[in-house]
Amino acid sequence: MESLKTIKSQIEPLLESFFQDKLKKASKIDPSSEEMINLLKEFTLRGGKRIRAALVYHGFALFQKPNNEILNAAMATELVHAFLMIHDDIIDQDDTRRSGPTIHHSYEKLFNKHYGTSFAILAGDILHAFANEILASSNFPDNHKVKAIESLNNTVTKVIYGESLDVLSSIKPNFTKKDLELTHYLKTASYTVEGPLHLGAILAGATNQQLQTLSKYAIPLGKAFQLQDDILGLFGDEKKLGKPVASDIKEGKKTLLILKALEKASEHDKTVLKASLNNQNVTKEDIQKVRDIVTATNSLEHSQNTAKKLIKQAKQAITNLPQSESKQFLIELADYMLERTI
Amino acid sequence: MESLKTIKSQIEPLLESFFQDKLKKASKIDPSSEEMINLLKEFTLRGGKRIRAALVYHGFALFQKPNNEILNAAMATELVHAFLMIHDDIIDQDDTRRSGPTIHHSYEKLFNKHYGTSFAILAGDILHAFANEILASSNFPDNHKVKAIESLNNTVTKVIYGESLDVLSSIKPNFTKKDLELTHYLKTASYTVEGPLHLGAILAGATNQQLQTLSKYAIPLGKAFQLQDDILGLFGDEKKLGKPVASDIKEGKKTLLILKALEKASEHDKTVLKASLNNQNVTKEDIQKVRDIVTATNSLEHSQNTAKKLIKQAKQAITNLPQSESKQFLIELADYMLERTI
Repeated sequence: MESLKTIKSQIEPLLESFFQDKLKKASKIDPSSEEMINLLKEFTLRGGKRIRAALVYHGFALFQKPNNEILNAAMATELVHAFLMIHDDIIDQDDTRRSGPTIHHSYEKLFNKHYGTSFAILAGDILHAFANEILASSNFPDNHKVKAIESLNNTVTKVIYGESLDVLSSIKPNFTKKDLELTHYLKTASYTVEGPLHLGAILAGATNQQLQTLSKYAIPLGKAFQLQDDILGLFGDEKKLGKPVASDIKEGKKTLLILKALEKASEHDKTVLKASLNNQNVTKEDIQKVRDIVTATNSLEHSQNTAKKLIKQAKQAITNLPQSESKQFLIELADYMLERTI
Repeated sequence: MESLKTIKSQIEPLLESFFQDKLKKASKIDPSSEEMINLLKEFTLRGGKRIRAALVYHGFALFQKPNNEILNAAMATELVHAFLMIHDDIIDQDDTRRSGPTIHHSYEKLFNKHYGTSFAILAGDILHAFANEILASSNFPDNHKVKAIESLNNTVTKVIYGESLDVLSSIKPNFTKKDLELTHYLKTASYTVEGPLHLGAILAGATNQQLQTLSKYAIPLGKAFQLQDDILGLFGDEKKLGKPVASDIKEGKKTLLILKALEKASEHDKTVLKASLNNQNVTKEDIQKVRDIVTATNSLEHSQNTAKKLIKQAKQAITNLPQSESKQFLIELADYMLERTI
């Protein structure tokens, strides 16, 4: 998606220079502080579609002519995202993210497992602080900034409730579709789409009613995003994704794909599915069996159709917005959600 | 110290009702979210001297007549403190804090060790978000709030660099007195005294010059606070402190007491000291030996004298402030630093 690439090419140099500045300050403190910032810089700049930054930008541009300052503020969502990924990687015990080592894994190699976890907790925390600092020191009217900071931290609160539900999903035996929908709202719809879109709109002085319209687009889009993520997590290309395809299965994540397959599968297939979930030693053959069952039960088709319906709903919610480049972006983003392979 | 107790008795009901409100909201999300807030509420209200809250209050009161709103904002520093303690307890692998279970230990008992760490990371993160939310939604002029949020996150940044240095102190063989002073500045002086004092003063609209005067009081006071903390950590009353006296030794922390003793001790005693540092199986007798060496080398006296000098310096820095209840508080707090047994 071209317009995503444009934002990516604009925001990454800003992130680069943000970290350069932090590096300079950290080098005056101690080599260990400098090392932390160096690791965080490499991790944050390693990749990512920058969807959140793009949504901040266009959320602003819907209401005001955008300038460089909104891209600066958009860094806050990218830093929050890096912070949450770092903590999430500890929780999921993942050593790889975007084809490189996770932060705790980098530190683990320098020290040991426990220090790996310890420094990664601190490294995530510092990015959380940086994100708030960026908004507080950005060049917007103070009343907009204050509302934006409140919104950002509200979004973080929700995503943490979502993360916590997500962790529980693998150990809660009666994890229902209702739990799943809630997790998708908190972990993805609010966090990846609604929050960033609101952040930009708030900085441009949007009214609460305008924010509500954006929510009607954001929530279904975000849910579709998560469904597609889960599909890619099981059927996607490991190399493109930069993470092992089996990880959701290993963690025992109850995705819609899995829940629906468990509902429809034969007793024998149910046993096969359950044996793979939460199994750290799952083989390639086991994963292929899971894929076959998810396909044969039409669970894959069900997830795909649900995602399509949500995308349609999202696009309908913004039909009344006046035509603009940013409206066009939102429509294209909705279509891109289902086409994407990463 | 009476004036500390007054603040404590005022801020704790506010914290109580803050968490009640969050509980109500979390209960609408999911029982696991409610459980997280319940654990956080109990943990935050379990104890604490509320020095940071008192400093926010008096930092404000030096420049403006205080009201309930400044106590509300002061909750932000208490929540940041709880957030950092939760993450610190994971790092230090402490099961007990203020005579109760640490957050990761509570979760560990509900699930297992890894989930204990996972939920405690998230629980700390959510408090960090709450702290920013409190400031953003407080009832002060927007320009003061923005500056206060910037200041808070700056303080968090510094304390994380300090934490990271502190973790390193136990594994860095050549940890010097210079490293130690820097750690004390970042981890205690800036975080416990200067940050909260500035936060209150900023919300009251203090000038940068006024903030600088406060720093001249805060930094030496904070360093003395840390020295006294280390003394209590080795010589204090375990029951009063609510944590095992040996923990600094077990973690191999290079306090001034230890550094100075290592400098002055005989070769034999040096070996004894080094054998206890970082030793998880250290006995009561070992700890007593460490105490004896620290006393015999005059290292205890050295720490006490250094702390006294710093306190004198702190008090001198504010002699020119006009007489007020809050100035009186700052003077009393300085004296209390060395008298305290918890």
